[in-house]
Amino acid sequence: MKNRVITISRQFGSGGRTIGKEVAEALGIPCYDQELIEKVAEDSGLAKEYVEEHGENTTYSTILANAFSTYSYSSGTTQDYLWNIQKKIIRELAEKGPCVIVGRCADYILREHADCLKVFIHADTEARAHRIVHLYGESKDDPKKRLAKKDKRRAAYYRFYTDMEWGDVKNYHISLDSGALGIDKCVEIIKNLY
Amino acid sequence: MKNRVITISRQFGSGGRTIGKEVAEALGIPCYDQELIEKVAEDSGLAKEYVEEHGENTTYSTILANAFSTYSYSSGTTQDYLWNIQKKIIRELAEKGPCVIVGRCADYILREHADCLKVFIHADTEARAHRIVHLYGESKDDPKKRLAKKDKRRAAYYRFYTDMEWGDVKNYHISLDSGALGIDKCVEIIKNLY
Repeated sequence: MKNRVITISRQFGSGGRTIGKEVAEALGIPCYDQELIEKVAEDSGLAKEYVEEHGENTTYSTILANAFSTYSYSSGTTQDYLWNIQKKIIRELAEKGPCVIVGRCADYILREHADCLKVFIHADTEARAHRIVHLYGESKDDPKKRLAKKDKRRAAYYRFYTDMEWGDVKNYHISLDSGALGIDKCVEIIKNLY
Repeated sequence: MKNRVITISRQFGSGGRTIGKEVAEALGIPCYDQELIEKVAEDSGLAKEYVEEHGENTTYSTILANAFSTYSYSSGTTQDYLWNIQKKIIRELAEKGPCVIVGRCADYILREHADCLKVFIHADTEARAHRIVHLYGESKDDPKKRLAKKDKRRAAYYRFYTDMEWGDVKNYHISLDSGALGIDKCVEIIKNLY
């Protein structure tokens, strides 16, 4: 297994994005995350804010509305249109060369890509709540509620487009508890697997 | 985290037992598996064959029978009696010194033991079917059916005594796909985490 592409799925607040960036930096390969959103936005002709709103952080009601929608835009809703462009871009990035891709169901999209290391990063609620308050500051919502809301959205998005369960151990080559192991140790393990 | 005890939960045929033994050997600490069964058998006064039959490989019907049983043997069924002795022994072993414990819900039993690294080993059905035929030979049952049966029993046993889902990523610090990564790589990762 050459593992030329590393996909990182992650619970909100688990530090998965930081881990992805640090692994990519250590290996000298690109990491696609926010950059990916921007590329999707450019290619789709949709505004960046729309892409952010309707990507994996889409609301549950949008997914339901999409599921029951009869509105067709070249054989699908705008969300499906976005999903297809995202899929195309992720496949192109994986073909282009070694990289790290954070989120965006890349593990599923690249399931037939032989050189792919699929990683899941999780942590318990305490550790994640602490991290998001530290990183993003306090908000009027309780941090645990914010975590539950974000995770629910990611899980629903993943389930809708992949027919699989987000965070199911079977879908990943390696799953790491960043709260117990620490960010640095996670980076080291993934880097050494490359 | 000092990780003085490593618990390894594993899907049948994933090589988790081999990984446990090799990690223990590399670290120069004991590995409890078959040995644990023997110790349980001695302490409980129950025959070794009985312990093997009614431990985590117990049949589904035994678990159901146990769940609905009204028969009481010092406030429980024989299976509960076995569970309690097993719990006591696992705690004693963890107190005694560094070790690897394979299976037996040790991750749950030691959930309040601070120095515990909880590992889950899995692999896809193809890899596991190949492994069990190679290790244990052919049998009249299809290898995939044998895997499904064993996993179902382990999951039911785990759920009954822990009220948690066996193989749920949240219950482990690290989960590894031994089919994709290989046994040696799994041993190396766990050893380096110690």
